[in-house]
Amino acid sequence: MNFTLFRLATIVSLAAATVVAATKPLVLSEQGSFFVGGETKTATTANANAPAGAPTQGDVTVNQMYVQYQIPLSGNQHVPVVMVHGCCLSSKTWETTPDGRMGWNEYFVRKNRAVYLADQVSRARSGFDAGVINAVKAGQLPPGQLPNVLFATHQTAWSVFRFGPTFNKPFADGQFPVEAVDELYKQMIPDLNALLPMPNPTWKNMGALAVQLHGAILMGHSESGFFPEEAALIDPSGVKGIVSIEMACTTTLMPSQLATLAKIPILIMFGDHLGDVEGRFGSIWTTNFDTCQKFAEQVNGAGGDAQMMLLPKLGIKGNSHMLMQDKNNLQLADLILGWSDQHVEAKKSAKRH
Amino acid sequence: MNFTLFRLATIVSLAAATVVAATKPLVLSEQGSFFVGGETKTATTANANAPAGAPTQGDVTVNQMYVQYQIPLSGNQHVPVVMVHGCCLSSKTWETTPDGRMGWNEYFVRKNRAVYLADQVSRARSGFDAGVINAVKAGQLPPGQLPNVLFATHQTAWSVFRFGPTFNKPFADGQFPVEAVDELYKQMIPDLNALLPMPNPTWKNMGALAVQLHGAILMGHSESGFFPEEAALIDPSGVKGIVSIEMACTTTLMPSQLATLAKIPILIMFGDHLGDVEGRFGSIWTTNFDTCQKFAEQVNGAGGDAQMMLLPKLGIKGNSHMLMQDKNNLQLADLILGWSDQHVEAKKSAKRH
Repeated sequence: MNFTLFRLATIVSLAAATVVAATKPLVLSEQGSFFVGGETKTATTANANAPAGAPTQGDVTVNQMYVQYQIPLSGNQHVPVVMVHGCCLSSKTWETTPDGRMGWNEYFVRKNRAVYLADQVSRARSGFDAGVINAVKAGQLPPGQLPNVLFATHQTAWSVFRFGPTFNKPFADGQFPVEAVDELYKQMIPDLNALLPMPNPTWKNMGALAVQLHGAILMGHSESGFFPEEAALIDPSGVKGIVSIEMACTTTLMPSQLATLAKIPILIMFGDHLGDVEGRFGSIWTTNFDTCQKFAEQVNGAGGDAQMMLLPKLGIKGNSHMLMQDKNNLQLADLILGWSDQHVEAKKSAKRH
Repeated sequence: MNFTLFRLATIVSLAAATVVAATKPLVLSEQGSFFVGGETKTATTANANAPAGAPTQGDVTVNQMYVQYQIPLSGNQHVPVVMVHGCCLSSKTWETTPDGRMGWNEYFVRKNRAVYLADQVSRARSGFDAGVINAVKAGQLPPGQLPNVLFATHQTAWSVFRFGPTFNKPFADGQFPVEAVDELYKQMIPDLNALLPMPNPTWKNMGALAVQLHGAILMGHSESGFFPEEAALIDPSGVKGIVSIEMACTTTLMPSQLATLAKIPILIMFGDHLGDVEGRFGSIWTTNFDTCQKFAEQVNGAGGDAQMMLLPKLGIKGNSHMLMQDKNNLQLADLILGWSDQHVEAKKSAKRH
């Protein structure tokens, strides 16, 4: 099969696919958006080319995190779920898939979970601190001080997201809708996380959001896959569960930190073909899986409940890095919901009684 | 009244306000998100600090426009409405207000309109072309080639958005919820439109979206207030109505262009206190109003239907630049809906019979 021709042939049907097939009406008790966190700072070059006489100094807000939410008609019977996207992406990750199917955001709401989508600090609707860029333009800082903007190419995405062994060659059993890969490429936007202070403000904001919600499951993916753990290490009080998808793990936590995470049910998910991509990205996923395996063992060694879910081991084949967009994305969502019922909700009920 | 103290005192209630007061359930036949437009280009410095041996070259997608939509249970009985935000803002503009009330996005859906929120090209979830930033960092371009990033300060926003005569001093009759102004400041994100080619790709994308929807009302605000007109000048075929809010107008269109716009009902809205802000921004709104008045006269002179709606003239006082967030925002939405019924929907019905 000539992949390029295949893609061209299907592009026509995609416009139609954005008008998704009819399903049952979606009934919400509430929806909206708000910000978590954010600090005021003085900008000395808020607008480098301001007209003569205009103030170049003033206050700006930075490090805020934009959150968009929907609450099902059933309200908060279940623990709310906070979803945070990965590198070079936005909350679009969780919405309508590239080929026009329902995303996890809506599916979880239809499964009676309140869902909160957060754009990482420095990305998308959360904005970013433009101070350094303006200072370099104004000659106040050298160009080398500009952030290292991660602007992933199609070629990098294809390999890192494991759509196939080499660019434009899909895996025969691949679950990613490669016929719509151009729609995924449109989701890929510059990643300015290099601008952020450490610790990453998104971690603190995620923890604060969980507290604000009186308890939440935090879900991260790829770049943000370990963010739920980082959030819990800053403030575990609101974190009722963690879903970490396809990421690198830290294996150098202190015993006190492991003890904190051992109190939170953790699910770690990986797809298929971890070692089947050729070229420079060939070993990153097997390495990441191994470090996460070790991390899970450390948490469990501290008395925790960390579960590794390697999909091929369950007989679910062909999944890419983009589990939430793969053709079997709702089947995978059901796995998470099932884990949540057993490991998070059951615990909540047990506490009640 | 000490404004700062007032603000501090109300900040506590804001966290609660984000959990909006209960209203009737929202029933949707469908929701989702997709992109309009976008082109593939070769990035020569996709990642300036790529590890040794990593490819620095590849394809990236730019100029795509992210669109998030909700369709009411009643479907497309009415003409869909496309809302596009202004400078230094995102589609958050139209959502939950800074003080936690319902935004126009949901209100229009509750009034049985399908609503499409578009993040401008180069902003928020639409992403931007990071090529120039990476090239400057890599020493391939001089710092002066960096875009002029508009990163509006609180001080600028207060004045330009007409919250009061001077910073932190509200108008006595002001409709903007100044007690929650910090929540507005969090919405303000860097504006990278200086990176865009001309004509602005958002214009073409808005026109294309209207066609894709088989007809739509295009709504713009401030920076994007004249974008609906620009979109119609590129392709009027899908533009069934235009709502232009608080912006600068062009008064140098050619007769053929005016003839195009004369076929589309146009509503132009302005709030109050146009000339009541002190300092360097003191005259921009009276000037903008005057140019829009002249533009409307030109359209009407060409046989068109352009209506100027100056709210104080209707006895509606105290509105800021942020009509969709002001305390009477739903009253103003009703004015737009009423105009739409009379000028757009009636026309549609007339055509049907």
